Amino acid sequence: MTNKKEITAGIIIIGNEVLSGRTKDINTSTIAKWLNSIGIEVKEVRVIPDIESVIIETVNILRKKFNYIFTTGGIGPTHDDITAASISKAFNIKYGFHNEAFSILEKYYKPGEFNEGRQKMAKMPISAKLILNPTSGAPGFYIENVFCLPGVPSILQSMIGGLNNILVGGDPILNITISLHTVESEIAKSITEIQNKNKNVEIGSYPFFRAGKLGVSIVLRSSSKKKLEECKLQILEFVNYKKIKKVEEI
Amino acid sequence: MTNKKEITAGIIIIGNEVLSGRTKDINTSTIAKWLNSIGIEVKEVRVIPDIESVIIETVNILRKKFNYIFTTGGIGPTHDDITAASISKAFNIKYGFHNEAFSILEKYYKPGEFNEGRQKMAKMPISAKLILNPTSGAPGFYIENVFCLPGVPSILQSMIGGLNNILVGGDPILNITISLHTVESEIAKSITEIQNKNKNVEIGSYPFFRAGKLGVSIVLRSSSKKKLEECKLQILEFVNYKKIKKVEEI
Repeated sequence: MTNKKEITAGIIIIGNEVLSGRTKDINTSTIAKWLNSIGIEVKEVRVIPDIESVIIETVNILRKKFNYIFTTGGIGPTHDDITAASISKAFNIKYGFHNEAFSILEKYYKPGEFNEGRQKMAKMPISAKLILNPTSGAPGFYIENVFCLPGVPSILQSMIGGLNNILVGGDPILNITISLHTVESEIAKSITEIQNKNKNVEIGSYPFFRAGKLGVSIVLRSSSKKKLEECKLQILEFVNYKKIKKVEEI
Repeated sequence: MTNKKEITAGIIIIGNEVLSGRTKDINTSTIAKWLNSIGIEVKEVRVIPDIESVIIETVNILRKKFNYIFTTGGIGPTHDDITAASISKAFNIKYGFHNEAFSILEKYYKPGEFNEGRQKMAKMPISAKLILNPTSGAPGFYIENVFCLPGVPSILQSMIGGLNNILVGGDPILNITISLHTVESEIAKSITEIQNKNKNVEIGSYPFFRAGKLGVSIVLRSSSKKKLEECKLQILEFVNYKKIKKVEEI
């Protein structure tokens, strides 16, 4: 890669509901797009069950492997929300009421409404730093390079922006998508040749069906705008030469 | 778990397009629901990049950890489709033209259309068994307990049914979903008590926003129909007692 400073991330999706197929994970896409925009590349995602030993092991392996780790899910009020307690064990930090989180939640709820379930959301590694939640009060938290976010997509989306000044990214990864009315096997050879000539650009090829027509999206990714443009011109040259219809370029 | 014979699976989603956030993975949900229906439980999903060494390592770790492994993606005609070659290396089996696959593809395409890119789709571990593809010709394949499927969801969906007689499942995992107009923190304590009394049922709690109203879906999962029903009655009893509105039960 051209990235002089490649900053990497791993995502851990915690939740039986994704493993059972009941819920489709969309948080990976949200987090990955946001991280790309600040120059951090997601290298691995693991979906794991709500089992303490598995959470601890996965967090401890991945936090050494990548610059940043993001977990989603398991920080709510119910019995199956065991992420905060598991992260405490992974870091060997006391699990208990976090003063600042308790105070935020106490103010958020009406007097008398701050029940046992809600108080549980203030329990976490006691020395964690908070990730504020503008949507529903209960904060996420982070310790060292591990950031713990909720599983509900709309709440997660409202919280990640607050981390832009905390994360240190590399060069943003730029991308261009060229969609063509063709099939992969018609262009495979030419794209391979172009990939071989453009080592600093990652070229992906993804078939699609849209409005009853078959197509292929060619996705170019690089942290170098110049190399991306050069590669794009080579693709467009061969597309013109082969008289392939270009659907869009974004 | 009550499963006398618990059969487990891991899924490996191979593709930079999921890690970049460009594509949302829906194959996990398709595969997990189908496996549940034949008594196989997905225990872990990993999303990894199109990098040979990573594919080999991940396949070799997970195939020893679970009864079955399913990979998706990377078996098409383009340069970034390296799953088949990587699996060959993981199993130390020669990568080359698979006679049966070549013959299927040769018949599928019109004379003169079976070009180099399309021929690549017949290349795989030469002793692999095929997974037939009723949608677009190019077969998937399997070796021992590792099943390699394409990444395009509609094609994958059309292929998995063909494996029903090959996979050996345990007791099917049954589930009941009870959706309530409440919030998690109102019911957390009661659900915890019910979970503690029903060790053979896995109870999950998932908040939702639907038609402008907040709710929680309580999902009960077990391989025992009797235990599932007993647990359901305890949930409904407390729902009635607390005067919580039930939205649906499926």
